[in-house]
Amino acid sequence: MQRRFSRFADTVLGEPGIFRLMDDLDAALTGSQKLHMLGGGNPGNVGPVSEYFRRAFLRIGESADHFARVAGRYDGPAGNTQFRKAFAASLSAMYGWSLTESNVVLTQGSQNAFFLLLNLFSGPFPDGRGRKILFALSPEYIGYENSGLHENSLLAVPSKKIPLGDGFFRYTIDIERITQALQTGNIGAICISRPSNPTGGMLEDDEMKILSSLARQFDVPLIVDGAYGDPMPGVVYGNGRPYYDDNTIFVLSLSKTGLPGIRTGIILAPADVCSVLERIQAVQHLAPGGLGPALVQEGIADGSFFKLCKEHLPAFYRERQRLAIDTLFNELEPDRDVQIHRPDGAFFLWAVFPRLTISTSELYLDLKKAGVLVVPGSYYYPGLPDDDRQSPEWEGQRSIRISYSQDLSTIQEGLSILCQVVREKNSRA
Amino acid sequence: MQRRFSRFADTVLGEPGIFRLMDDLDAALTGSQKLHMLGGGNPGNVGPVSEYFRRAFLRIGESADHFARVAGRYDGPAGNTQFRKAFAASLSAMYGWSLTESNVVLTQGSQNAFFLLLNLFSGPFPDGRGRKILFALSPEYIGYENSGLHENSLLAVPSKKIPLGDGFFRYTIDIERITQALQTGNIGAICISRPSNPTGGMLEDDEMKILSSLARQFDVPLIVDGAYGDPMPGVVYGNGRPYYDDNTIFVLSLSKTGLPGIRTGIILAPADVCSVLERIQAVQHLAPGGLGPALVQEGIADGSFFKLCKEHLPAFYRERQRLAIDTLFNELEPDRDVQIHRPDGAFFLWAVFPRLTISTSELYLDLKKAGVLVVPGSYYYPGLPDDDRQSPEWEGQRSIRISYSQDLSTIQEGLSILCQVVREKNSRA
Repeated sequence: MQRRFSRFADTVLGEPGIFRLMDDLDAALTGSQKLHMLGGGNPGNVGPVSEYFRRAFLRIGESADHFARVAGRYDGPAGNTQFRKAFAASLSAMYGWSLTESNVVLTQGSQNAFFLLLNLFSGPFPDGRGRKILFALSPEYIGYENSGLHENSLLAVPSKKIPLGDGFFRYTIDIERITQALQTGNIGAICISRPSNPTGGMLEDDEMKILSSLARQFDVPLIVDGAYGDPMPGVVYGNGRPYYDDNTIFVLSLSKTGLPGIRTGIILAPADVCSVLERIQAVQHLAPGGLGPALVQEGIADGSFFKLCKEHLPAFYRERQRLAIDTLFNELEPDRDVQIHRPDGAFFLWAVFPRLTISTSELYLDLKKAGVLVVPGSYYYPGLPDDDRQSPEWEGQRSIRISYSQDLSTIQEGLSILCQVVREKNSRA
Repeated sequence: MQRRFSRFADTVLGEPGIFRLMDDLDAALTGSQKLHMLGGGNPGNVGPVSEYFRRAFLRIGESADHFARVAGRYDGPAGNTQFRKAFAASLSAMYGWSLTESNVVLTQGSQNAFFLLLNLFSGPFPDGRGRKILFALSPEYIGYENSGLHENSLLAVPSKKIPLGDGFFRYTIDIERITQALQTGNIGAICISRPSNPTGGMLEDDEMKILSSLARQFDVPLIVDGAYGDPMPGVVYGNGRPYYDDNTIFVLSLSKTGLPGIRTGIILAPADVCSVLERIQAVQHLAPGGLGPALVQEGIADGSFFKLCKEHLPAFYRERQRLAIDTLFNELEPDRDVQIHRPDGAFFLWAVFPRLTISTSELYLDLKKAGVLVVPGSYYYPGLPDDDRQSPEWEGQRSIRISYSQDLSTIQEGLSILCQVVREKNSRA
């Protein structure tokens, strides 16, 4: 007997990339094969920050009362009110924004925040139109793929590539094509990750202003995925500042600060959006979890948690990033053999191999056999139209995403193996 | 400017009952007004079980390694593998079922498990048909309402009422109408909660066999919500045994054992269903949380956690239940003024007031003013057709759900106030 599933199952019947990634990640972390794990989004274990969490965890456990309040109660559907107040107040003070708890909704991880948001602004609308989420950069996060409950609910505009010399480049927005897409009236929201997963790039402050004014002009919200950025985990290496205004939905997470197992996402948004989100969350979840907010409540209220993150996390990843770049540039010739996206934030390198004679999907398999796990670039193009995938400028089959959150020897050994495999598969030309 | 949301928002624009319930619950627990909280699904704080959790929590926190494994890592999309293995093995040993980890998927609370399952088996199907979830009992859980992403995706068959004398009755399944509904071919799955939220009743073992064979005959799965039942929290007062077979999807939860803030649902299902669920979960969540499974891992593996629950939880709630029933039957005349569903499990009384001159929606408001929070019965009819709602036999406007998870004085005082208000609003006839 073939079981009958509804169309709700359709989006996942082709084994989504994010499923393969999470499955690979779990296998690498729990399996017996020695793997150099450069593929996942798991954050590093950063001593002082882990210890901060562990001490907060123990304090909760040491008080029967506190433990009962955190573990033994449902929060409201928007999440812990005390935390939402503190978060709104802290960010308002730090950045001059005007937030109250009515602008904050907690979710069970930011992945679920995006499931809710992308569906809230794509698919069929009450006016009879179908609308799409517009990804203003492409490549873009693998986890957005398949998240739309309706077919064709995502549309990506290919990024423009700017060479920077010395083996580096960066992607930026193609304003003309973004404007054209908005002019169709078929866009429900603009979305970007900043810092970008997968490229580690960060759209500059001026570029954000352009995107934001386009969003406003075409009356759609701008959704910004800040899972790796300021104010936490704060893994930002340059001067870019977080962006928020009354037409922006800004999504943050505790995962990359070191708490992926606790599943805590935070949405900052206009109050009318939050009001719909909390109702949806009541139906789909009753309430988000109470532990994530409890662990950082104090440090959010007095700002010390943000300082702790900024003091330790960027430095931790920066050291690994330098090693990764040095290894790649020592073993492959910059620009000719390998090009790296300028790393502005997060803990990923996006590497393009111009002379590779095989696709990076094949490279991924060769590397897995050689004990190195990366993610092939082609996964990172949710919503990219077929025409753009056929374009010679498309880099999805020449690129990979490398995570540098693991220990230094894993990074160095893994990338040395990678460079060796790449050299073997490079053209002789 | 009116913001444009997609139809994804449609189901929640009318303020879902579950949202109002969760919001009331949060307000009662965090607000300043003294409220007798008899309205929520929050479990009681049961000393020995809370202490068990707290000690397990502290053990995790005391080891930096263990803490990092639990909080600092993503599990796979189906949830912690070690836990799933232990859970499958334990339940197989206890009940003679044949489960492996491929039959177990963890979710971020059982509410989300139902969001996934109800949509997986309702709405548009690939064969072009729309199918519905059939609730074999009605009243049924408030939280199923609005959970279908498509209109008209839920269909309830009214329960048959069996008077038991001495102020008690019980609802049972209307086999004829259930069969008729299945014969249309428009049903995607049968669903019941057992023990029932809201009635506290429990479909008997023979009735389960009938439902199960109907499900098999019409080639749809039987989904059983066991959030209050065996093997955990084990809040079952009679002899009913948990039901599972290879056409059943059995959903459990850690919430009612005392961990609602940790959000841990557990789905037992045929492997083909689990395989689709874990893919969907990767897209919507990346992975479920790691703390819930870690807290009970050992006690699940050696069975001691189930024993702990059975030793303490039913007794805790039974004491409160007796007080609640005594209070109602002392202050109102059994059968004539109040009828109570036979309490077989969970921590709810479903009370019907035959002589009330106002609806229980109005009674709810009067009680709230008087400082008592209950849930009006009319919320508990997800999917009930209008015709059945118009029927004189429909009890939705004569009934309320009373939670007896709070302390004894709250129960006694709250119900005394309730009885007084009911007496004032009873007909003189």
